[in-house]
Amino acid sequence: MKNGIVLRGDLIWTEGPDRFRYIEGGYLSMEGGIIKGVSAEPPREGTILDYSGSLIIPGLSDLHLHAPQYSYAGLFMDEELLEWLEHHTFPEEARFADTGYAAKAYGAFVSDLTKGSTTRFSAFATIHREASLLLMRLLEDAGLSGYVGKVSMDRNSPKELSEDTHEAVEEEILFIDEASSFSRVRPIVTPRFIPSCSDELMEALGKIAGERDLPLQSHLDENPSEVEWVRALCPWADSYASAYDRFSALGPRTIMAHCVWPTEKEIGLLASTGTYVAHSPSSNGNLSSGIAPVRTFLEEGVNVGLATDVAGGSSLSMFRMITDSIQVSKLRWRLVDDTRKPLRFPEAFYLASKGGGSFFGKVGSFEPGYDADILVIDDWKGSTVLRSELSVPERLEFYAYRHPEEFISAKFVKGQRII
Amino acid sequence: MKNGIVLRGDLIWTEGPDRFRYIEGGYLSMEGGIIKGVSAEPPREGTILDYSGSLIIPGLSDLHLHAPQYSYAGLFMDEELLEWLEHHTFPEEARFADTGYAAKAYGAFVSDLTKGSTTRFSAFATIHREASLLLMRLLEDAGLSGYVGKVSMDRNSPKELSEDTHEAVEEEILFIDEASSFSRVRPIVTPRFIPSCSDELMEALGKIAGERDLPLQSHLDENPSEVEWVRALCPWADSYASAYDRFSALGPRTIMAHCVWPTEKEIGLLASTGTYVAHSPSSNGNLSSGIAPVRTFLEEGVNVGLATDVAGGSSLSMFRMITDSIQVSKLRWRLVDDTRKPLRFPEAFYLASKGGGSFFGKVGSFEPGYDADILVIDDWKGSTVLRSELSVPERLEFYAYRHPEEFISAKFVKGQRII
Repeated sequence: MKNGIVLRGDLIWTEGPDRFRYIEGGYLSMEGGIIKGVSAEPPREGTILDYSGSLIIPGLSDLHLHAPQYSYAGLFMDEELLEWLEHHTFPEEARFADTGYAAKAYGAFVSDLTKGSTTRFSAFATIHREASLLLMRLLEDAGLSGYVGKVSMDRNSPKELSEDTHEAVEEEILFIDEASSFSRVRPIVTPRFIPSCSDELMEALGKIAGERDLPLQSHLDENPSEVEWVRALCPWADSYASAYDRFSALGPRTIMAHCVWPTEKEIGLLASTGTYVAHSPSSNGNLSSGIAPVRTFLEEGVNVGLATDVAGGSSLSMFRMITDSIQVSKLRWRLVDDTRKPLRFPEAFYLASKGGGSFFGKVGSFEPGYDADILVIDDWKGSTVLRSELSVPERLEFYAYRHPEEFISAKFVKGQRII
Repeated sequence: MKNGIVLRGDLIWTEGPDRFRYIEGGYLSMEGGIIKGVSAEPPREGTILDYSGSLIIPGLSDLHLHAPQYSYAGLFMDEELLEWLEHHTFPEEARFADTGYAAKAYGAFVSDLTKGSTTRFSAFATIHREASLLLMRLLEDAGLSGYVGKVSMDRNSPKELSEDTHEAVEEEILFIDEASSFSRVRPIVTPRFIPSCSDELMEALGKIAGERDLPLQSHLDENPSEVEWVRALCPWADSYASAYDRFSALGPRTIMAHCVWPTEKEIGLLASTGTYVAHSPSSNGNLSSGIAPVRTFLEEGVNVGLATDVAGGSSLSMFRMITDSIQVSKLRWRLVDDTRKPLRFPEAFYLASKGGGSFFGKVGSFEPGYDADILVIDDWKGSTVLRSELSVPERLEFYAYRHPEEFISAKFVKGQRII
């Protein structure tokens, strides 16, 4: 593909959260996996792929999900968090000691992720090194890109998921070394969360991330009893967030999932360190956690992206996360704090594309120099009587609310077509 | 079909909100459109339809939706209620003066409703008699069953949707008379809500419902500004609900949509009159209304069903309403009142089946004597790695959360197969 590829269709993207950019019947050029630009007229060079009448949007980033939990996403939702972890999450994760089972379960997960709206992801695996590497292999082979973490946990966990501290550190180093054979999928340091990681392990993992120049992911402020627990476990820390900070675990290469119950000071710390928040609206409903103060995050300059948090969330659809994040922000405005305006559709779309995408580099926009992560959506298949009257942004909104998991007809990651 | 029909498959239903009844590989017998019973062994008589491996559940009832708004369900969701009504709802409803447009828009609506999870419904049309009758014809021809109301409104409405009071009453009587030609779809008296109906019109409509022995539907306590408005419009009434009561508009044949902000006294009045609440969780999020106190309704003996409230809700899926009602009840528990437990899956399923179905008669269960409203769901098409380990109720929950709008392979209403 010497002169690059040009996609023709109805282009729409966001460069900032305030509004959409779009060109109806426009052209999107890419070369070597990189966006060259958009235009209203056909460019002089490049092979044209004609998707006239379809929406063409940037790929979407899922900043937090648990790959081994996908098998039971949408099950056992009547149980509360700790019950649910004990009865279902931990027994299911323990199965991934068996790589045969892992191949089957991760195979189904990767197949559905590939068909869906996600192009980039940051995933938790389990404590099992073999199975975690297998997951990376499947994702790499599918053409997806993102991070996978072998989970580290050495306390307050069921026996079959507890590592000895020393062994946890050694296994993590082995995992990172063996994971270096992949190129599109990279390792991420993954302490499950402070309650299941001793100070010694947290310290070692923070150090590994620094020395190996690796990103890190964990959970923060998901629900009030967890916050209380961390207060008891880390009496020396000002807050849950500052406990992570003491282990050098915050920064622009860190994702903290949830952040539903942060204090003002913690929000300041997330902002000043550049830490990313993975906002998981569906999961925070399903697990009775609450509604994160996303408007405050945006106003205070915290980096935010959206996340399915499968299996706390039951859907892999990032479109569902876009519309759910808007819905819960409206409920928060009504029920909790009417000084913080609800999210608007362009803002939520921005969070799912360029907002979360920036964790991975130049990802999630059609600006020149961005990675060519692209979704083509045949939104006319769910056509409304009014379609001919709708603008391109209206069609995107209609699609996101009505058909969030259907009609994706082509998907490119770093310029490579994967469906 | 002399000896009746027998459906073989994995039967599951609720007789009360506390738990599921189910038979894996069971038999559901019906004759003359009526359920005869369920059994684990094949009955002696009847033609067997083999749906082995599929879930077989009672049809679901959508207690409140606006048929003309379906064209733009999922659009303009960033606007607040009054803005949204003025900019989109009213202009769109005004178009239904044109029966050509109505045929197109209602055609698309009925086609999607037929494919989906709803077997019974109570729908608002518009003020236009011709178009409302056309909608009834389309629904009747599709084999669906339920109520359609020509909307009545004579104040605080845009000119093109305002009726003169006298004309509103006359048109309503004509509508009821002409609607008598249908058998599966029946008319329902439909004052839009108190703000758009004068006392004189409300009184006349209450009287018509009484004299003609017809059901009635309207809106109640959707959001705080609406409640304030009614207080100003009806200074003589104790509450919004008691204003309806004074017009003889409450009772066991009345559906009141929303009821997000009822007072204790209003809850008592809804319970003592037997009025049905149409709980609309998605719509109440989309329009920033809040979260209705459904647990309190159940504890106080109020009749409750679920509703999409299209286009406040963007989805026609009753499975989505089931899972959304659970999610928002968890947020209400966490954020508003932790003395009221969240809804559990069997309870939400009960509300969508027998709970709301009871408004239409013996509808929404597999008990003998119930109308044969049945959905067959090929849940194995969305099979999980764990499927062989799942019980029938677990499979139903998994389907409801994961694939709420797919895989319905057969649908019976009053014993007649319609898809």
